[in-house]
Amino acid sequence: MRDVAERAGVALVTVSRVVNGIGTVREETAERVNAAISEIGYQRNEIARSLRPGQNSMTIGLLLGDLTNPFYASLAKAAVEVAAHAGYAVLLSTADEDPKVERRAVGELIGRRVAGLIIVPDQGDHAFLQEVNGHDQVPIVFVDRPATGAEADVVLVDNEGGGRMATQHLIDHGHRRIAILVAPSYYTTGRRLRGYRKALRQSGIEVDEALVVTLRRGTTEEATAATHALLTSPHPPTAIFSTTGFLTEGVLRASQQLQARIAVVGFDDFKLADMLPTPVTVVTSDIEELGRRAAHLLIDRINGEDSPFHRTVLPSRLIARGTGETAAR
Amino acid sequence: MRDVAERAGVALVTVSRVVNGIGTVREETAERVNAAISEIGYQRNEIARSLRPGQNSMTIGLLLGDLTNPFYASLAKAAVEVAAHAGYAVLLSTADEDPKVERRAVGELIGRRVAGLIIVPDQGDHAFLQEVNGHDQVPIVFVDRPATGAEADVVLVDNEGGGRMATQHLIDHGHRRIAILVAPSYYTTGRRLRGYRKALRQSGIEVDEALVVTLRRGTTEEATAATHALLTSPHPPTAIFSTTGFLTEGVLRASQQLQARIAVVGFDDFKLADMLPTPVTVVTSDIEELGRRAAHLLIDRINGEDSPFHRTVLPSRLIARGTGETAAR
Repeated sequence: MRDVAERAGVALVTVSRVVNGIGTVREETAERVNAAISEIGYQRNEIARSLRPGQNSMTIGLLLGDLTNPFYASLAKAAVEVAAHAGYAVLLSTADEDPKVERRAVGELIGRRVAGLIIVPDQGDHAFLQEVNGHDQVPIVFVDRPATGAEADVVLVDNEGGGRMATQHLIDHGHRRIAILVAPSYYTTGRRLRGYRKALRQSGIEVDEALVVTLRRGTTEEATAATHALLTSPHPPTAIFSTTGFLTEGVLRASQQLQARIAVVGFDDFKLADMLPTPVTVVTSDIEELGRRAAHLLIDRINGEDSPFHRTVLPSRLIARGTGETAAR
Repeated sequence: MRDVAERAGVALVTVSRVVNGIGTVREETAERVNAAISEIGYQRNEIARSLRPGQNSMTIGLLLGDLTNPFYASLAKAAVEVAAHAGYAVLLSTADEDPKVERRAVGELIGRRVAGLIIVPDQGDHAFLQEVNGHDQVPIVFVDRPATGAEADVVLVDNEGGGRMATQHLIDHGHRRIAILVAPSYYTTGRRLRGYRKALRQSGIEVDEALVVTLRRGTTEEATAATHALLTSPHPPTAIFSTTGFLTEGVLRASQQLQARIAVVGFDDFKLADMLPTPVTVVTSDIEELGRRAAHLLIDRINGEDSPFHRTVLPSRLIARGTGETAAR
């Protein structure tokens, strides 16, 4: 702690306050302390230090996004079940697309001597893992996306194939002006966009870049606003492919508000999709299987499996329910 | 491990297989091993043994139900956020209403020397906590329900008040034959049923026990079947109060299938409730606040707060959206 105080240029009591979450510390100061902590690799967990080298803590770390996103909830559920079955406890941490938070969370988990890590990486550079994990060499499995700047096992869904499938389905129902909503610079939605472009190209349809809408944030609200703009434009699309569950909700809200007759295919299935006024057509994968595969792979690695890194891609499939079968006028 | 093998009457290698989840072991044998483990309090986590008495592991255990239930996801999200802010990591465990699983999970978490525990207890007797937790006296906060046979802080929502509110709303819209679907013997739904009875009594309506439907399991499928039976009975209700989110989905599915004109009020809000053909009226509470309160209380206890046990009850409120305002014919 003394090192941290020195590096951050604060009193020892301030470090203690930040670390233990007691009392009040100015946000700026707290950030400086936290930065110092991660820089010098100070790890709070004293227990961890007492672990003998080579001993397995029988704990794995799971780092993912907002649990109220059903995608992450399904992933966590499956990973926890597999881990528990193999005798592992799960330390759960959430980062939600903030590289600084992710970096700190990874450091914390490794500091608590997890035997392995399952990470849904954000789009930032992951070269820092070398630094944080250089000493312990804790096995890592990336799930849903690979991480730039880091090599490890990866479990993905077929994003590009799913994107092509969704777009092809709309083309098959006579659509030519198909818009796509893309969450900002995520690996997954980028691949889904690639599938969209391929499907259009293969059908000889030129991509109208005005219909490729990249949002500033991947929220339902942004998607609602973007759909409003698209549908009230002089030359609106007849169909929309929304590349995440949150975006699909926004598209549906906007088209319900405008009472627009528009075809919609979403990526990722969601609860009650079949109960809406027009049941919703989606492309989806088995998300619990994604979590199970990641956990099994990780436990194999912990147990010494040393084959080259795997890249597992789960298939996507289309569920036609109604919104995707609205014919173009 | 040797003690476990002896007690379970199996070979040492069999215990190792069960503990590490490697190889195959007959289910019956595995159960015997697991029983022996929890009986003699063998704890796998060797790290834990090295913790000095009085030292804070800066880890809390969170034991709840199926994460794909948005109620638990919201709870977990909020608890993890509060814990992380205070410097605590969270060990996540799921039990899903199985007393044996819950008991084992609690033992595991305590064995890993968590500094405190947040538990959504099942309806079984919790006297076992005395035994499991007798030595360590780890602070516990129960959330969503109190636990029979154990004293600790509890954070609840106003179940009885919410049940009365839901029923009164239906009475106010002219309903006299109001059915209630109740999940089996859970504390929460029992209180909601009590609120239902009170509201009817206060309005001078006699409770028709044929309209009080206790399901064998709290699933959407059971609720769908029960609603079918109610709506096709000779003297059907004109309104249904469904006491959990899963049950509400079942009621809505059945009434959509039968195209029944029936009023519905659900307990617990859910995503897209406002987007359904008739938007759904619900009674709800702030579930993330439930998780936050529980985590704050627990951290206070870990930090030495020794006032008498608290019982926090969060208010319920009704959101009128459509299904609850269908008038009785």
